[in-house]
Amino acid sequence: MSDDDRPRIALSLIGIGTGNPDHLTREGQVAMRDADLILLPAKRADTAELLDLRQALCASVATDARIVAFDLPERAADGPYRAAVDDWHDAIAAAWARAIAEHLPAGGRLALLVWGDPSLYDSSLRVAARLTAGAMRMTVRVVPGITALQALTAAHAIPLTTLAAPVLVTTGRRLVADGWPSGVDTVAVMLDAKAAYRTVDPAGVRIWWGAYLGMAQQAIAAGPLAEMRDVIPTIRAELRGRHGWIMDSYLLRRGPDD
Amino acid sequence: MSDDDRPRIALSLIGIGTGNPDHLTREGQVAMRDADLILLPAKRADTAELLDLRQALCASVATDARIVAFDLPERAADGPYRAAVDDWHDAIAAAWARAIAEHLPAGGRLALLVWGDPSLYDSSLRVAARLTAGAMRMTVRVVPGITALQALTAAHAIPLTTLAAPVLVTTGRRLVADGWPSGVDTVAVMLDAKAAYRTVDPAGVRIWWGAYLGMAQQAIAAGPLAEMRDVIPTIRAELRGRHGWIMDSYLLRRGPDD
Repeated sequence: MSDDDRPRIALSLIGIGTGNPDHLTREGQVAMRDADLILLPAKRADTAELLDLRQALCASVATDARIVAFDLPERAADGPYRAAVDDWHDAIAAAWARAIAEHLPAGGRLALLVWGDPSLYDSSLRVAARLTAGAMRMTVRVVPGITALQALTAAHAIPLTTLAAPVLVTTGRRLVADGWPSGVDTVAVMLDAKAAYRTVDPAGVRIWWGAYLGMAQQAIAAGPLAEMRDVIPTIRAELRGRHGWIMDSYLLRRGPDD
Repeated sequence: MSDDDRPRIALSLIGIGTGNPDHLTREGQVAMRDADLILLPAKRADTAELLDLRQALCASVATDARIVAFDLPERAADGPYRAAVDDWHDAIAAAWARAIAEHLPAGGRLALLVWGDPSLYDSSLRVAARLTAGAMRMTVRVVPGITALQALTAAHAIPLTTLAAPVLVTTGRRLVADGWPSGVDTVAVMLDAKAAYRTVDPAGVRIWWGAYLGMAQQAIAAGPLAEMRDVIPTIRAELRGRHGWIMDSYLLRRGPDD
């Protein structure tokens, strides 16, 4: 097969927000309707709820696309972090390629529904780059979506940025490793399963925390870090036990109110 | 009038994205439809286009709300920055209060359409806090919207965050004042009318720039900062001359590709 005969895949990475189906934008809705194939990652059993949410979202936009769930490989728990993630993304790219070969053999419009926004702590662009750099003839388009940080600040009705001031967006792992960044009074933290806020000096710091943001089971809590650092782990453990899984994020702010 | 007799105002601050009407979420659409009154700021003449965009957005959701444009006060150009902004927000709060007294005297559902997302470099929450702290009986709800940063990364199909790494979101003014932040390889810059990127050591840094993001006249450019630092001001001046106004933002990233 010559290069020009390879099937063309037009991939749309669609940010769908954080589980509130009404986070979907009109652009995302149109992209879902226009797709020939929508691939939904089937992750671990304990997040089956997230697959259900995506399927409900597909039903709500009345798309004629084929909707196919595929097994998302799991990341190796051992080995160096970076190597484990690279291997994992290779494995996901291979899973996408297999699903495309099976369900879109003549090419067409492929959509993937990305939690939050494809730009923020998401691997879809990295996975897609593996396919466009490889044998596949694929274009990539990004449809922005509401992130957990926006859902968090909306739930608390607070600004992310105080007046003309910067904000650092980081992960729990990096907050522990790097400490509070210099020159910044607001830190937004994602991907923190280990209560990294407990490593921060709580003096003069407030926390705004939220879990299942945008979803029916949304839970939020806010207050001085000195108090909340002992309260939030309890709330979180209780919620995790009740729902079987949890996704949360939070904002830390130092200094007087704006 | 006793406290309980005061009219109730349910304010929705609706993030509408960056000028692409399809950035609107279903949540935003419903909030616009449910409103009794939508207040649109009429700014300076050179941004009449932005008022037109908001009016077109209102028409597209087929709301029965009254749609009223009100004169947005201008910020004093002289005096200390913080004091000027505080005075400006006081004046905007007074303008909202006047418009509410005139157009929603018995109370009801009020919507304001916020460019981007109400959490990111926007003053609406700060203005609303002046009214809720004052005589008005008002509740505030935030509907998240697509920010310029998401429109920027979507337009370039790039991640905002590289693998599990932090990102600093800041302003042009602060980038000049603070320099490149320590411990961060990605900096997202908003509100920069003065080419703050020209103050950054360009060695090993790439820039992804965009103007009118999401709008019909969207323009993007990307490349090594060493080259683009002289190219972007020319592009920007040309675009500003052609359209009469400009809004842009950019991402700077240091180090090898992800």
